[in-house]
Amino acid sequence: MGELTDMPTALWSSGAAYIDGRYMPIEEAAIPITDWGYRRSDVTYDVVGVWDGAFFRLDDHLRRFRASMRGLRLEPPESDDQIRSILNECVRRSGLRQAYVAMDCLRGRPRPGEVRHPVNCRNYLTAFAIPWVWVMEPEMQERGAHLIIAKTPRIADSSVDPTVKNFHWGDLTRGLFEAYDHGADNCVLLDREGFVTEGPGFNVFSVTDGAVATPDRGALEGITRLSVIELCDDLGIPCAVRKLPAAELRDADEIFLATTAGGIMPASRIDGRILGNDRPGPISARLREHFWAKRAAGWHATPVEYGSTEI
Amino acid sequence: MGELTDMPTALWSSGAAYIDGRYMPIEEAAIPITDWGYRRSDVTYDVVGVWDGAFFRLDDHLRRFRASMRGLRLEPPESDDQIRSILNECVRRSGLRQAYVAMDCLRGRPRPGEVRHPVNCRNYLTAFAIPWVWVMEPEMQERGAHLIIAKTPRIADSSVDPTVKNFHWGDLTRGLFEAYDHGADNCVLLDREGFVTEGPGFNVFSVTDGAVATPDRGALEGITRLSVIELCDDLGIPCAVRKLPAAELRDADEIFLATTAGGIMPASRIDGRILGNDRPGPISARLREHFWAKRAAGWHATPVEYGSTEI
Repeated sequence: MGELTDMPTALWSSGAAYIDGRYMPIEEAAIPITDWGYRRSDVTYDVVGVWDGAFFRLDDHLRRFRASMRGLRLEPPESDDQIRSILNECVRRSGLRQAYVAMDCLRGRPRPGEVRHPVNCRNYLTAFAIPWVWVMEPEMQERGAHLIIAKTPRIADSSVDPTVKNFHWGDLTRGLFEAYDHGADNCVLLDREGFVTEGPGFNVFSVTDGAVATPDRGALEGITRLSVIELCDDLGIPCAVRKLPAAELRDADEIFLATTAGGIMPASRIDGRILGNDRPGPISARLREHFWAKRAAGWHATPVEYGSTEI
Repeated sequence: MGELTDMPTALWSSGAAYIDGRYMPIEEAAIPITDWGYRRSDVTYDVVGVWDGAFFRLDDHLRRFRASMRGLRLEPPESDDQIRSILNECVRRSGLRQAYVAMDCLRGRPRPGEVRHPVNCRNYLTAFAIPWVWVMEPEMQERGAHLIIAKTPRIADSSVDPTVKNFHWGDLTRGLFEAYDHGADNCVLLDREGFVTEGPGFNVFSVTDGAVATPDRGALEGITRLSVIELCDDLGIPCAVRKLPAAELRDADEIFLATTAGGIMPASRIDGRILGNDRPGPISARLREHFWAKRAAGWHATPVEYGSTEI
């Protein structure tokens, strides 16, 4: 990597990308318009955060990404070790200490002359590191998000597996417009039976009588969700992974959300109802503080190897 | 357009694209990797065919495309008249007489500094013309497609509206793998109640006792489907748009499919059962012949204006 230490950092500081074997500044990173990764959303992805110069739970993300690829029968040429190096290289080139780091595996296009079927496509990998993205700005986290339960139901598991991270956001986008039309910040989607699933890019947690609950189905098995479960164990807070009826969420004492690009994000309103004192509830706030304190102390951290570009 | 008549055609002959105000050879046409049109599949599209130098039902496609954009609250800067000119210009630059012509409207990305919500994105248009694509090769159409009814159910209408043409193909792709695993060519998906919806990029028709039927729900309102309904009327063949139970499709005398990129495509097997004499059925074949004969005679045709590049 020594050859790259003298690269002009201004070119890369808004982000660095890798596409199918080649590195480039983020502005140049693009997907061919005829690629099925775009035209059929035939792609899976994962996102790992870098905070204070270290990846959070990198191995967990790599493991989930590989499982997602298997779930869609996608096989890029890169091994997990190579993906790890690529992610590091994207962050290193960007020089970012706080970064949103994505990896995608796309179906590609059928080889010329072959039948137009996904088995005849050459799958490939992309990755990029850009400055940290907040799903909700810190100010919104401080006042607590205003949520609605959307009328649009989540795409059913039997049609598209939500544990395989995907870009099928049509239902979530509709939910975001519903929220907008009601003057709310964000939305939570139910399944067809009226149980809570997830929101656009986050898992959902309710707190009732001091106990935390999060859905066991219809949602991504979030890495931050896993961290919440571990934190509850640390702090002696009961945490159940089970079916979560909409009514229970509506009547909860507290609600919070969890995502890589935001950590633990408390809500303060749902469907117009004010939770507690219209501020993040005490258990949500405690979990959020504990989360960032542990992060600062190096919990599940893998330092980025910035190499000689770092001072 | 005169300035372009002497452009090197080799550069453009594999396709011409338009992206947000700029024309380019298809090889250069790409979507930014951070665009929500890709990362959230927050995009709608349409595809119109060019055959023998003329668009087929161009106005119908433009009307549907505009309705799809409205359905997703997408507003690109281009008017319908401008889109019509852009599509013509893509075909003209490519010089293609048989072309697959796509138009997409993407959400874009949130403007810098604004809340990450779809309302804060600048929507934009893309289009391209590439050599004609067959969803099924003519040889496959001659022998009749081998279909399966997939176990994967179609994404429900209440989650993602199938009448708004979209890239949420996760369920269809799963169905294609199911077909592949069973040695079949393609698949038909049911809704959760067991009624036929559509397949990957095509509408489905059954023929029983001389009468044609196609689903009234859960499917795109295909332009070729509309043509089939008109052709049936021409030929005095009864054609019903109604709920189509899976059992009726399995027991049909004939099955055929309809799509822009293939026209009317007969099937000869379903779930391993051989229909008729393992060849396209007589009504399917008659409709297919009639379709292409009318096309050759200029039915619903809008000639491409190739301008002075044409000999």
